[in-house]
This record gives sequence, C-alpha cells and structure tokens, in this order.
Amino acid sequence: MSNLGFSRLRVVNPYEASFREARSAVGAAPLLKNAEEYKTVAEAVADCSLVIGTTAAHNRELHQPLKLLLQAAPMIRKRLKSGRVALLFGSEKRGLFNADLSHCHWLLHIPTRTEHLSMNLGQAVAICLYELIRVGGKSKDVKSHPASDPGKDKLASSGELERLTSLLLDALRSSGYIDQQTIAAKEEKIRRMVRRLNLSADDAEVWLGMLRQIAWKLNQR
Amino acid sequence: MSNLGFSRLRVVNPYEASFREARSAVGAAPLLKNAEEYKTVAEAVADCSLVIGTTAAHNRELHQPLKLLLQAAPMIRKRLKSGRVALLFGSEKRGLFNADLSHCHWLLHIPTRTEHLSMNLGQAVAICLYELIRVGGKSKDVKSHPASDPGKDKLASSGELERLTSLLLDALRSSGYIDQQTIAAKEEKIRRMVRRLNLSADDAEVWLGMLRQIAWKLNQR
Repeated sequence: MSNLGFSRLRVVNPYEASFREARSAVGAAPLLKNAEEYKTVAEAVADCSLVIGTTAAHNRELHQPLKLLLQAAPMIRKRLKSGRVALLFGSEKRGLFNADLSHCHWLLHIPTRTEHLSMNLGQAVAICLYELIRVGGKSKDVKSHPASDPGKDKLASSGELERLTSLLLDALRSSGYIDQQTIAAKEEKIRRMVRRLNLSADDAEVWLGMLRQIAWKLNQR
Repeated sequence: MSNLGFSRLRVVNPYEASFREARSAVGAAPLLKNAEEYKTVAEAVADCSLVIGTTAAHNRELHQPLKLLLQAAPMIRKRLKSGRVALLFGSEKRGLFNADLSHCHWLLHIPTRTEHLSMNLGQAVAICLYELIRVGGKSKDVKSHPASDPGKDKLASSGELERLTSLLLDALRSSGYIDQQTIAAKEEKIRRMVRRLNLSADDAEVWLGMLRQIAWKLNQR
C-alpha cells in the first residue's frame, strides 16, 4: 500500500495478537500505525460510496456482478473523484464470506490460473493497487476523498445504504412480509438488493425519510 | 508465479538453509520443487535472449536504459514468441548488484512512490507477472519457449553473449589494452557494451569465431 501511494488501511475484527505484533515493511510503519480498527464490515465501509469485494471466484455461487481487475480499475478511478472507495479483502485462508460480500456493490477478480486461483493476500493487494496507479506513472499519495462538490452524481455512502437496509428490514418484519425465523436468511439478499439501486446521496436521504416514517407507523400498531 | 501461470523459477546462489526450508504457498509446491539452482547469474540466464533486471532505481547510478513496467510488458511478450526471457530480481534487502545488472539488456521499474521505492520481493514479482498477463484474461501456462523458427530475428542468447564477452576480455588483456589490475573494473563495462550490440544469433556466431581466432593469435606470442 505504502509503495503504491495508498494510506488508509482499515481492519475488521482482526486477530488481536497477530495484528498488534505485525511488523510493517521498511518505510510502512506510519501506515500500519494509523490503521483503523472496526468491529464489523458495515462500520468499516460506512463512509464509502463504492465497496468492492475481492474473490478468487472458486466454486462459489456469487450473487453480485463479477468484473476483471482490468475492467474494474477505470470505474474505481472515476468514483474516487467524488467519494471514498473500499477494496475489501478476506483472510488468506478463507477469503470473504457471503455476509461480507453482501456489503459490496460488485466483486473483483484477478485473472489467476484456473488450476491455481487463490492468491497470497499481500500479493493480491499489491496487484489491485498497481492496476489502479499503473497509468500515469509514479503515483502521489492517492487522494481518496478530495473536497467533493456535492451534486447529483454523488452516490450514497455505505452507511446511508446500511441504515436504509435496516429500516427496510424493520419495515418488512413489522409488516409480516418476513418472519422472525427467516430474517437472517433474507438479510443478505435485501442488503444486496439495496446496493443494486445505485442510489444517489440525495435520493438515499429521501428514501431514508420515507422508510423511517413507514417503520415508525408499522411499529405503532 | 503459479497463480499467474509462470512455471520456471531459477535461483542464483541461494542461502541454502532458507531455500531448502522454504514452504510454498498452497498449490505452488511443484514450482518450488522444480526450481533450478545456479552458481552465477551468467549460468542462470545463459539460454535467455532477453535479460531484464528489476530495480527500485534508488539513488543509484544506472548504466542501462530504465523502462517503466507498463512500457516493458509489450516488449517482453513479443520477445517471448521467439525465445526465453529472464526477469531478474535481487534479494529483498539489497536488490541486484551492479555486477548482476551488467548481465541485463535493460532495466525495469515498478512505479512506486518516491518516498517509498523499495518493494517486498514477492509483491514485486506478482506485479510484474500480472502486467505480463493482464491483457487476455486468464492465462494458461505461459509458454516461454515455443518451437522457435530460427531466423534473422532470433537474438543471441545470454550464454553466447557471455562467451563473446570473455573472448573479448581475453583479447583486450592479451593485447595490453587493459592490464591485470584494472580488468575487474572494466569487466562490467565491457559486458554491458556487448549487450548493447543487440546481436542476432547468427551474427553472434560470426563474432565468436572472429574473437576466438584473435584471442588465440594474441596468446601465441
């Protein structure tokens, strides 16, 4: 990350012992020192308007669009002009779980050999970040959040989408659309559905107001 | 390497203990097992017609052309159609020495931040190989040496260039052009000079014959 000009590392629920003892590469100590810790993926990506999961795309059923890194990079660079983008990586052994992936707008894949799909975590990160800065030569510290002019283009942050998801789930439960037994199974599905709306920040705010009202009303009864 | 479809690892003078104990990543055991060991860079690249050194290009005086990875990749892919290409990486701590670099036709650089140039070795390798296969999606096992049609295009191998270098040095010494005291200092300079000739295989053979004769004659006296 430090080599390629990226400075914001966020870790979700790390294994404390190894995280605290992690030795940074020469020159990358500030980056590791400034890493932010979160308890959940939802909190970690709350201020991001684009969340991308990385996957080796094994024999797993995927519920989101899958793009090659090559195709993904221009879209990421474009989105970085108006907001924060999160690249989500799983643990080396297990990768990301479906619950993690449900927070993602779409998924990204490094074109590894079919016979050897899973990559080393550090190498996967290096390749993804390299693709983002390869055009334009030496990267300066990549600004992930320039003073953005809030307009119609500005997309809803993941925090807003997650609040919207919660309100919607609340409303669906209160309304009897889903019952207490199946809500866990439905939650990821609903979360993905909300991400697919591709809501602008302005629209998300309106939707939040509407759902808040609906949920309140439903809970009155 | 295994993820991205490259299978031929050659190691020069490795620190035996750690090399033998090296554990491969899941799925990469055959690659590590088949790694070939060499005593010198010259032997390791003898059958390659293009040798490229990697460097963080610190505050070091470079004697060879330096290309960005982005520019280098198409040239490497083209050359792979008619012969073997070696990508030379130094140790994590020290990188490549000038003596190693003198075996290279040119040098390659990953566009890291000026404030943090040196990369982790495994990540540098991953990024270089990714750039080679990024176009065209999933790579099959990259053929580094298809049955090549030997023509005028075919470049001299590093082994031929090294023999030529030796004969030239022998001739220069025997002729009194360089004396025994300065030969070590001159050797790398001469080696680089020979690489810059960009000799075809056919021409290299002619040159070898000529120099062999000259050296023999000089040593007769």
